[in-house]
Amino acid sequence: MRDVQSERDERNVPLKHVGIKNLKYPVVVLDKKNKNQHTVAEINMYVDLPKDFRGTHMSRFLEVLNKFHLKIDPKNIKAILDELKKTLKAQSASIEIMFPYFLQKKAPVTKIESYMEYKCGFKAYDTNEQYEFYIVVEVPIQTLCPCSKEISKYNAHNQRALARIEVETSELIWFEDLIELAESSASVPLFTLLKRPDEKYVTERAYENPKFVEDVARDIALSIKENKKIRWFKVEVESFESIHNHNAYACVDSDTMEV
Amino acid sequence: MRDVQSERDERNVPLKHVGIKNLKYPVVVLDKKNKNQHTVAEINMYVDLPKDFRGTHMSRFLEVLNKFHLKIDPKNIKAILDELKKTLKAQSASIEIMFPYFLQKKAPVTKIESYMEYKCGFKAYDTNEQYEFYIVVEVPIQTLCPCSKEISKYNAHNQRALARIEVETSELIWFEDLIELAESSASVPLFTLLKRPDEKYVTERAYENPKFVEDVARDIALSIKENKKIRWFKVEVESFESIHNHNAYACVDSDTMEV
Amino acid sequence: MRDVQSERDERNVPLKHVGIKNLKYPVVVLDKKNKNQHTVAEINMYVDLPKDFRGTHMSRFLEVLNKFHLKIDPKNIKAILDELKKTLKAQSASIEIMFPYFLQKKAPVTKIESYMEYKCGFKAYDTNEQYEFYIVVEVPIQTLCPCSKEISKYNAHNQRALARIEVETSELIWFEDLIELAESSASVPLFTLLKRPDEKYVTERAYENPKFVEDVARDIALSIKENKKIRWFKVEVESFESIHNHNAYACVDSDTMEV
Amino acid sequence: MRDVQSERDERNVPLKHVGIKNLKYPVVVLDKKNKNQHTVAEINMYVDLPKDFRGTHMSRFLEVLNKFHLKIDPKNIKAILDELKKTLKAQSASIEIMFPYFLQKKAPVTKIESYMEYKCGFKAYDTNEQYEFYIVVEVPIQTLCPCSKEISKYNAHNQRALARIEVETSELIWFEDLIELAESSASVPLFTLLKRPDEKYVTERAYENPKFVEDVARDIALSIKENKKIRWFKVEVESFESIHNHNAYACVDSDTMEV
Repeated sequence: MRDVQSERDERNVPLKHVGIKNLKYPVVVLDKKNKNQHTVAEINMYVDLPKDFRGTHMSRFLEVLNKFHLKIDPKNIKAILDELKKTLKAQSASIEIMFPYFLQKKAPVTKIESYMEYKCGFKAYDTNEQYEFYIVVEVPIQTLCPCSKEISKYNAHNQRALARIEVETSELIWFEDLIELAESSASVPLFTLLKRPDEKYVTERAYENPKFVEDVARDIALSIKENKKIRWFKVEVESFESIHNHNAYACVDSDTMEV
Repeated sequence: MRDVQSERDERNVPLKHVGIKNLKYPVVVLDKKNKNQHTVAEINMYVDLPKDFRGTHMSRFLEVLNKFHLKIDPKNIKAILDELKKTLKAQSASIEIMFPYFLQKKAPVTKIESYMEYKCGFKAYDTNEQYEFYIVVEVPIQTLCPCSKEISKYNAHNQRALARIEVETSELIWFEDLIELAESSASVPLFTLLKRPDEKYVTERAYENPKFVEDVARDIALSIKENKKIRWFKVEVESFESIHNHNAYACVDSDTMEV
Repeated sequence: MRDVQSERDERNVPLKHVGIKNLKYPVVVLDKKNKNQHTVAEINMYVDLPKDFRGTHMSRFLEVLNKFHLKIDPKNIKAILDELKKTLKAQSASIEIMFPYFLQKKAPVTKIESYMEYKCGFKAYDTNEQYEFYIVVEVPIQTLCPCSKEISKYNAHNQRALARIEVETSELIWFEDLIELAESSASVPLFTLLKRPDEKYVTERAYENPKFVEDVARDIALSIKENKKIRWFKVEVESFESIHNHNAYACVDSDTMEV
Repeated sequence: MRDVQSERDERNVPLKHVGIKNLKYPVVVLDKKNKNQHTVAEINMYVDLPKDFRGTHMSRFLEVLNKFHLKIDPKNIKAILDELKKTLKAQSASIEIMFPYFLQKKAPVTKIESYMEYKCGFKAYDTNEQYEFYIVVEVPIQTLCPCSKEISKYNAHNQRALARIEVETSELIWFEDLIELAESSASVPLFTLLKRPDEKYVTERAYENPKFVEDVARDIALSIKENKKIRWFKVEVESFESIHNHNAYACVDSDTMEV
């Protein structure tokens, strides 16, 4: 059968990324406490396409993925990219992978346990010149508005918010540690199961610890800066304001902090 | 050209609905204050398909829609369905149409105006035996937890929530009136633009008016029951809990209230 | 601490459903071939709320769920609902649970294996009078347009589509069997990994087997009707038309077929 | 009332972006043929926050937006950003705005007209050093697979795809021109309303004009390169494969082409 993809292309346009997007796949990822965690990933995988070739071979992305037997961890991601480059005769290869990740979490007072969902993942970009590896966590938190507290006789508006942390590192950093960092920078963390004494605690704790999205972004950034394993980072906090139908947003990355 | 759709089908399976789904179309809808409002609708249109025919003619749904020159209001929806039944030789025809709808809203203290988005729409089902017409509004609101207020020294968790009202009626009911009904049943309505005196007001007002999703659903239901134009209704309230990563939900319809 | 939820409500409005929505939780479900499959569920759980009580106790839904140690199967769903009714002193209890479900699937010619994602789940409604249990599968398939094939010199437009099957049953029916039924009614099934001989096969097979959404819905309905374990069903097929930016849709349920 | 936002911050962390996200607002945009088009925008607006201030003033973003009376066009976007910088005492200001945009489009043979939806918008970033302005269009198209055509006796798999073009420019470029460029690079454009002679045409035309996502990306890139008003661009094409449940993807930007 003719291999149309491998035919010579005369348009003289190299492509930055070609590949597959939005693939759902069962994976097993590392878990700090339980060693492994089964979850369901959404995966993008790309290589570059030199100007001389008409197309890439989409099926080979799957074949490479299957070679790794559903295991995805910071160590084998480099191997996946190497294999992609080899199999697809490419100069660069990338992977973006996100999945729900669960922690067993104790309620703050009653200590009853339940599972809490976070979105975690990796992004890796490999060219012949360099290898960049990113860890991503998305942590749902609560923010309680310092302005609303200050100007009101009682109460302060509070709401669910999302803290997103992306770090570049050459070493293993546990999702658990980044999640802890986001939760400790919030007005109060979220919990899946709270009994009344717990609800009293989180309600009061949030009021004693009011935070703008700006505050949360800054506090996360300061904690991250202390971690010498992290070479670059970006922190985004978005709160689903309980007084508005739009969101408040703050963002800081290491470049901003250098200025 | 052969008309495959009109060919005889021998499988003896009548279809309940066949048609088009998720069509985006520019429309002009009625506005209580400004007469007309331009918006962008998402439209589903169906007819039944008798067991003898293989397929419906999807293009005719668009032709019928185009005949009405982008105007969509409770009055011409019946005419659209009649035209669909005629054009497609069907016994029944349905339309579901939802769109963003904006009201100019004054901040509670400073009276500064801004636009607030609601999702509104119609659903209509026409068979030879009966015609059912529904009006739908989705209203973002705030709920403040009565339990959290009661058990805590200070503060109470509060959050953005969504109240969804669906009413069956044979007469015109303004979106504005259903929206007002949802907002007045909330702990406090949402606003797009609030200055500090407004923020103080909504923060304090919510605390003085704590509501579970159960309370909001019941209060909306009681108000709707007083409207004699409404033959059937369903009220759903879902709050994006600021202490959890899941939502609280309450639902009541006229049938439940009869029991 | 005061139990605000349990306080007497004077509004005289019983609520149909109160509970939690959009909870993400790790679960283990039954797998026909491998016994068990780990996945991530989205869960709604409700009970009714009698007119005399102000609110339900949201945390108890989680406590009940946790009692079942993440195992979700048709057999323990009835037990979950019984426990919900008992714990929450309710007359009715409901659960809706959907999750990604993976099958290892062989390419049609080369027989290379890869994982294919389906969305599967259960819905169960328990009142004192009756217990209704539903199995749901959402199966991505391909449809190739019979009209386009007939009127064109060559080619026919084809596209990804989604077949959704919901069945009411009192016995165990495997997801695998419902999925097989949807795939065998399509122009051709989808695959995650296809080499060139496979791609040739599916391209030709689809052309030899053109189907409207109407055809797929009817063929699935006829197959389901033969299964005596199924008491009620609904089949929906929606195709993401490759010639339009909207979708084609067909729906049939057992009631339609009785008429 | 105390102005908490303006209070001095000691953490020494300047923020890159603070502002509002996911605001829905009614807007009027420029239309090449009809002068104006009413639509509904989703808007993000940010400024930087110097290290000395604790928070930004979220309500002022809305006040600035309201000053422009719902008109959004390339010319006043610069003025909006200037006003943001002034009002919020910021060094940089950004806006991202996307909206459904409709064109009246003729079917290729019968010339019947209907409306076709595109997603269009602007992004603008203003610092004291430079002003960057981007135009974005997302154009749904069809791709027909050259490999599938080549290896199969008859037929070729085809599918809906999305071409996304982002260009940086200092001059006005009509959405209509970028859309035309994407549609003419596809196997065939999409249409909302097609009668049978039109369906025959698009079916045959796609088969005569097979394109990988790689081909579409390259052909769009080559056309854009000819436009001297465009200083930088990025082209992404993603096809919702009719034989897979994941997507094929290609991406090229001006930097890639320089290499």
